[in-house]
Amino acid sequence: MHTKLVLDEEDIPKAWYNIQADLPFNLPPVLHPGTKQPVGPDDLAPLFPMELIRQEVSKERYIEIPEPVREVYRLWRPTPLYRAHRLERALQTPAKIFYKYEGVSPAGSHKPNTAVAQAFYNRQAGTKRITTETGAGQWGSALAFAGKLFDIEVKVYMVRVSYEQKPYRRALMETWGAQVVPSPSNDTNAGRAVLAADPDSPGSLGIAISEAVEDAVTSKTPTKYALGSVLNHVLMHQTVIGLEAKRQLEMAGVYPDILVGAIGGGSNFAGFTYPFIGDKLTGRAPNLRVVAIEPTAAPSLTRGVYAYDFGDTSMMTPLLKMYTLGHSFVPAPIHAGGLRYHGMASSVCELYRAGVIEARAVPQLATFEAGLLFARTEGIVPAPEAAHAIRGAVDEAIRCREEGVSRTIVFNLCGHGHFDMTAYERYLRGELQDYNLPEEEIQRALAELPQV
Amino acid sequence: MHTKLVLDEEDIPKAWYNIQADLPFNLPPVLHPGTKQPVGPDDLAPLFPMELIRQEVSKERYIEIPEPVREVYRLWRPTPLYRAHRLERALQTPAKIFYKYEGVSPAGSHKPNTAVAQAFYNRQAGTKRITTETGAGQWGSALAFAGKLFDIEVKVYMVRVSYEQKPYRRALMETWGAQVVPSPSNDTNAGRAVLAADPDSPGSLGIAISEAVEDAVTSKTPTKYALGSVLNHVLMHQTVIGLEAKRQLEMAGVYPDILVGAIGGGSNFAGFTYPFIGDKLTGRAPNLRVVAIEPTAAPSLTRGVYAYDFGDTSMMTPLLKMYTLGHSFVPAPIHAGGLRYHGMASSVCELYRAGVIEARAVPQLATFEAGLLFARTEGIVPAPEAAHAIRGAVDEAIRCREEGVSRTIVFNLCGHGHFDMTAYERYLRGELQDYNLPEEEIQRALAELPQV
Repeated sequence: MHTKLVLDEEDIPKAWYNIQADLPFNLPPVLHPGTKQPVGPDDLAPLFPMELIRQEVSKERYIEIPEPVREVYRLWRPTPLYRAHRLERALQTPAKIFYKYEGVSPAGSHKPNTAVAQAFYNRQAGTKRITTETGAGQWGSALAFAGKLFDIEVKVYMVRVSYEQKPYRRALMETWGAQVVPSPSNDTNAGRAVLAADPDSPGSLGIAISEAVEDAVTSKTPTKYALGSVLNHVLMHQTVIGLEAKRQLEMAGVYPDILVGAIGGGSNFAGFTYPFIGDKLTGRAPNLRVVAIEPTAAPSLTRGVYAYDFGDTSMMTPLLKMYTLGHSFVPAPIHAGGLRYHGMASSVCELYRAGVIEARAVPQLATFEAGLLFARTEGIVPAPEAAHAIRGAVDEAIRCREEGVSRTIVFNLCGHGHFDMTAYERYLRGELQDYNLPEEEIQRALAELPQV
Repeated sequence: MHTKLVLDEEDIPKAWYNIQADLPFNLPPVLHPGTKQPVGPDDLAPLFPMELIRQEVSKERYIEIPEPVREVYRLWRPTPLYRAHRLERALQTPAKIFYKYEGVSPAGSHKPNTAVAQAFYNRQAGTKRITTETGAGQWGSALAFAGKLFDIEVKVYMVRVSYEQKPYRRALMETWGAQVVPSPSNDTNAGRAVLAADPDSPGSLGIAISEAVEDAVTSKTPTKYALGSVLNHVLMHQTVIGLEAKRQLEMAGVYPDILVGAIGGGSNFAGFTYPFIGDKLTGRAPNLRVVAIEPTAAPSLTRGVYAYDFGDTSMMTPLLKMYTLGHSFVPAPIHAGGLRYHGMASSVCELYRAGVIEARAVPQLATFEAGLLFARTEGIVPAPEAAHAIRGAVDEAIRCREEGVSRTIVFNLCGHGHFDMTAYERYLRGELQDYNLPEEEIQRALAELPQV
């Protein structure tokens, strides 16, 4: 039995899978924050190249991956899929556990799958410069990497507290040639206004988004803005993960009973699961269970409400219909920074509403326990975000043991933890904690939902 | 044309290549530091399991890789070999540049190739516990990883200044379950003696070796000691790199004109080049050039003398005949910590003496310049050690351009730089420097060579 299943470069998918072709419903329209009317391509044109806007609403089942994008994918794709023999033995489970590993990308996570595509389409559209925001830095570093390869300047507004606490991620972006400024900055009106009110502001993702968007629409250089999750085209670019995983599992002669993915804004989860969910939606995999694992600190699916809300905290973005904790909700400072998001991608929400996928929230300590077990059995130190998926898979495997049933469990290990060792150090010293999220706190944020 | 050449798991080598079978000379005997007589197996038995001692002196051409070792290798082997198309274009060179990438291992470098083998043979011999020393932490983390998979306790004596400055590497070792103590420690007589004289001692690799060795020979638990470079068996375990690279280049239909490797103690360089040097020694590749790149801060081959010297700075180890800067030589604090070694593996020295291989020393800034160019073209951020090989390959490629000749240049990218981002940050800020190494400083250290 193989430990890992490797595909040839030829097997890098030639097209992304667009789940909108197979959804049994239409996605709710995205609304303009001022008019509350559905946004059209023209509203988005200042921010994104037209091809990405087209992909955002396309219902074609497959959208061809341009050859220059596949050429860059070849640096790390196809990514390996592993059978977790050692983890299975440690758990004494009859389950078969497989994991797809996206940490082999130069940026160490799945984020480059879309960063490269976005950089390519921007380059094609004549964009010379892209702005974006980043919190922990995974998205910012993926875009810095992609921008450099397509000769596009990248400016990253990095939440100030992360800028100061995560100098290594910052240095990684700079090594790839990106300009990184702490947000709030003096480079935008939005930033200056915040600094005027509070010179010591630690910043937030919401402020950083405002700065990146303002920069993009006001710059004299042809500049666009890029987002690392939530939007349909971003999720679609990530489906290379699931498409490859399907082939690899075919090679292993199995089809999953249960898929598990960590979820924040939705791109990692969707990229891994949508090609399989396509099977489920079209009757080819009626019994497949798909489980999204979110942190109890940001439980959008399990404790949020289904409503129109802003994508950012500073109420600049269009309104999205989604499970949300309220745009003013501030998740506790868990180390899985990539999962600290108040909302959720639209298609994920609709699939959850329709009962196609399940969701579970897990507390921080349980994810680090699972991450450590994984590191000590399989050898790869997972990112805290990825440890959420491990927790979910381990729990399913334990259930298999208890029920005496063998099931095939597959999860996506979306990134390595090399830039998160402080978190492991703190966990090993007993300094991490779980966060109890009082219902009142959620209700307080939900009271600020926009009226639609 | 493929960007990367991937082998199947079946193609992980089934045997290591032992260059001692093909050397046209015998390696000089290793001498006991007290008697100055050649050491025998019994002298080494308290430190190493007998199978490793046997491998150390074996002249069999191929030594079978045990299946449990290959089973662990499968986690990341075979490693990819890339054609550096983007780097070639940036250099406008007619040269074909390829690189083998060892950074895909869970520890991020080539070190696990031998750590896993050593852990296996120790396990087989009943060893319950292994001690070792580490400076920057690459070797310590590789052994921590390997020990965990073979259920052997690992204790790492980590040079105190690194212990304090590199908490992420320390956390990585602890995540894999190793015990890590700053050296000098209170756990050994050697450590206590140093601390009594200087409670604030920053430690050194020499002191850490003394502590690890003392711990191994005095422990009540069956404990051995492990070394991450220099010894013959360590170099041999690394030949999986070169054996795979040969097959991959065959797939690409080329044979190298020039091989380039970074060199510190010799294991990375030897592991990559020896399977090709075997061809050269046996007449099958008479024109192959093999270039070792060392830092100007520790130029053992290019400025050292050929003499018997201690392997460590505290004069505990047997005496090795090698190119040495003197065991008391302290290299400048360059960021390529893995190359800061005063001596060199015996077989590398003999090949250099015999004119089979060449050596060049490069200054720190030039290596970071090459490393940054590589990150910005090929996308992978290299470890500072690996950047030495890149510098060497880039210089050869520039020569090809100047001479208007196409040559096939292959180098080994021995690890990624995720744990070295401080160094890149400092380079980008202009805070790094080259070090001028005065001849007097080398002469001062050489004056302390042991009399043999």
